[in-house]
Amino acid sequence: MLGSTGSIGTTALKVIARHPDRFRVSALTAFNNAPLLGDQVRELSPAFVGIVNGNGQQAAQGWTTGASCLVDAAELADTDIVLNAIVGAAGLDATIAALKAGKRVALANKETLVLAGELVTAAAREGGGEIIPIDSEHSAILQCIAGRPRRDVKRVIITASGGPFRGWSAEQLARATVDDALRHPTWRMGRKITIDSATLANKALEVIEAHFLFDLPYDSIEVVVHPQSVVHSMVEFVDGSVIAQLGAPSMELPVLYALTHPDRIEDSAVPRFDPVAHSPLTFEPVAGDEFPALRLGYRAAKRGGAAPAVFNAANEAAVARFLDGKLRFPQIAEAIESAMDDLEGMASATRDDLLAADSMAREHVAARFGS
Amino acid sequence: MLGSTGSIGTTALKVIARHPDRFRVSALTAFNNAPLLGDQVRELSPAFVGIVNGNGQQAAQGWTTGASCLVDAAELADTDIVLNAIVGAAGLDATIAALKAGKRVALANKETLVLAGELVTAAAREGGGEIIPIDSEHSAILQCIAGRPRRDVKRVIITASGGPFRGWSAEQLARATVDDALRHPTWRMGRKITIDSATLANKALEVIEAHFLFDLPYDSIEVVVHPQSVVHSMVEFVDGSVIAQLGAPSMELPVLYALTHPDRIEDSAVPRFDPVAHSPLTFEPVAGDEFPALRLGYRAAKRGGAAPAVFNAANEAAVARFLDGKLRFPQIAEAIESAMDDLEGMASATRDDLLAADSMAREHVAARFGS
Repeated sequence: MLGSTGSIGTTALKVIARHPDRFRVSALTAFNNAPLLGDQVRELSPAFVGIVNGNGQQAAQGWTTGASCLVDAAELADTDIVLNAIVGAAGLDATIAALKAGKRVALANKETLVLAGELVTAAAREGGGEIIPIDSEHSAILQCIAGRPRRDVKRVIITASGGPFRGWSAEQLARATVDDALRHPTWRMGRKITIDSATLANKALEVIEAHFLFDLPYDSIEVVVHPQSVVHSMVEFVDGSVIAQLGAPSMELPVLYALTHPDRIEDSAVPRFDPVAHSPLTFEPVAGDEFPALRLGYRAAKRGGAAPAVFNAANEAAVARFLDGKLRFPQIAEAIESAMDDLEGMASATRDDLLAADSMAREHVAARFGS
Repeated sequence: MLGSTGSIGTTALKVIARHPDRFRVSALTAFNNAPLLGDQVRELSPAFVGIVNGNGQQAAQGWTTGASCLVDAAELADTDIVLNAIVGAAGLDATIAALKAGKRVALANKETLVLAGELVTAAAREGGGEIIPIDSEHSAILQCIAGRPRRDVKRVIITASGGPFRGWSAEQLARATVDDALRHPTWRMGRKITIDSATLANKALEVIEAHFLFDLPYDSIEVVVHPQSVVHSMVEFVDGSVIAQLGAPSMELPVLYALTHPDRIEDSAVPRFDPVAHSPLTFEPVAGDEFPALRLGYRAAKRGGAAPAVFNAANEAAVARFLDGKLRFPQIAEAIESAMDDLEGMASATRDDLLAADSMAREHVAARFGS
């Protein structure tokens, strides 16, 4: 479990605790939340504990410190599944290491696939590992495809809640506060991803993620606004049939399914979907003008190479500044576009190329949009 | 193709005509529509032609006449799939014969499973045949289960349009005309099944059909009203995930899927589902008071034995009288209840027992509710 103290990590530990006969946690890592990590270690007694931003005292008690603890944990011999719940590019090396070692990666760290989709999928092919998404949308797509071959799939329709700003005017968006953006209508999530849900940058990341996970061309990946967030995505097959996955908005099912796929196990604690209680279900087209980040994401996706890495890093940098009160909401997309205009043609053949593009995009945002 | 001149039969021939590389029609049978059957024969040149209510002239031109033509067609050596689109109990022997011969039965003739579910499923086990439903609801359930084992399934939710009388008062229903009942809001179908959609007797038949097709206890089969008729049914799995199948209201997809299952083939002529155009999707509980036929259907289902056969036959007899203007709408359910009160305990061990129950129920309705 990489990133055990975050939103997805704590949810995953809660789910795993309900199935002690099926799962044993062999490793826990965190970035710097030592108190919570310590609590988790006392409860679960994992063989391996890692803390990226650790200190000598933690090292003395047997914890592995430094960024390399993530790859160490991902390569542990007696683990079958690496649950990667790290936020951002920091999760890349561990994902690649686990895939090369032939493990299943239960992937909540979608930035990994956006930053380096070609390298990650190549690592899976090389090592025999597999990527099972924890994102609710991609878990839905995986469940809807249900083992049918790629040739059966015509297109996927990724649902978007539309976030707190659905229907807001450009004028209103210019004055949107951090609190407004964090007021997500249906999902409780971490701060960064909640802002991404408000800009729809998260859907751009998910479109790119779907492209790599399911080997789909971008013209076959659509986004539709679905404010109730209970249809988690849909798949249209070549015969016109559409299969959808539904559930109450909760990450517990995607986490559980990533561990059990293709099997399912009884879990009555997962929040239940009731069609009458959740009625009506509505769908709207995405209003492109309200959500320039999604348009930029498609541009980055279709350009390929380093462009998705630049998109992702510029977005991360801009969102951090927005959360600190240093950018207005519309400037998030402006920062992304500015970085892409400058940097989307950078080299992208290697991990180091992509991490350089990532760094340059962050520096670009820092330089042009305040440090 | 048994019943080639009816609503499902003609739809099926239209779908099959689009895929000449995959399907060849080896036999056609009809009840008595010789002109249309003749047209179909000239177009498709099947090796076998049968007409139940035939005459000497038809026999002289090589058509097989009489009820036994259905079983003859179902047992033809060079057919892989028997598409049974016969309406009512007349389809039973052919279904059983095809299953005993190890064939796939693409089954639109749901009364077959209601009348004699135990015998039909036993014939499939004995002969190695399989039943693939053409009903849109059961096709949806089959697609949602997608090959997962029975133990993964928690419950199924069958959708009902609610028919033309959704929300009508008892007083209004007492005055409902045949034209009112035939005015189905979403589906174009034959007259008998359209009336069954107005009483919700069709959902009772579908609940029983689902029980036998998917080996589900009745407590795991629910009905929910969904007026838009685009979610064709849903499956809840043991982990809480719900999978739904969606499509424009058309029988073309269920017909095609029954022929290709578990594969899918490209067919761009099947009407497409567009989530935005079909928004909103709503769900309501079934109002038991408005729909006594559904309540009686569950009673027959749980009672088992001859009760479903009595339910089905009494319903058929009562609907025929309603269509002839001889019964008022609420009397359809009254006739079913009366027949069940008298006859639901009849013997049910053999085909002849069940056909006797079927006959007795029809006689009961004729005697008590006018001939």
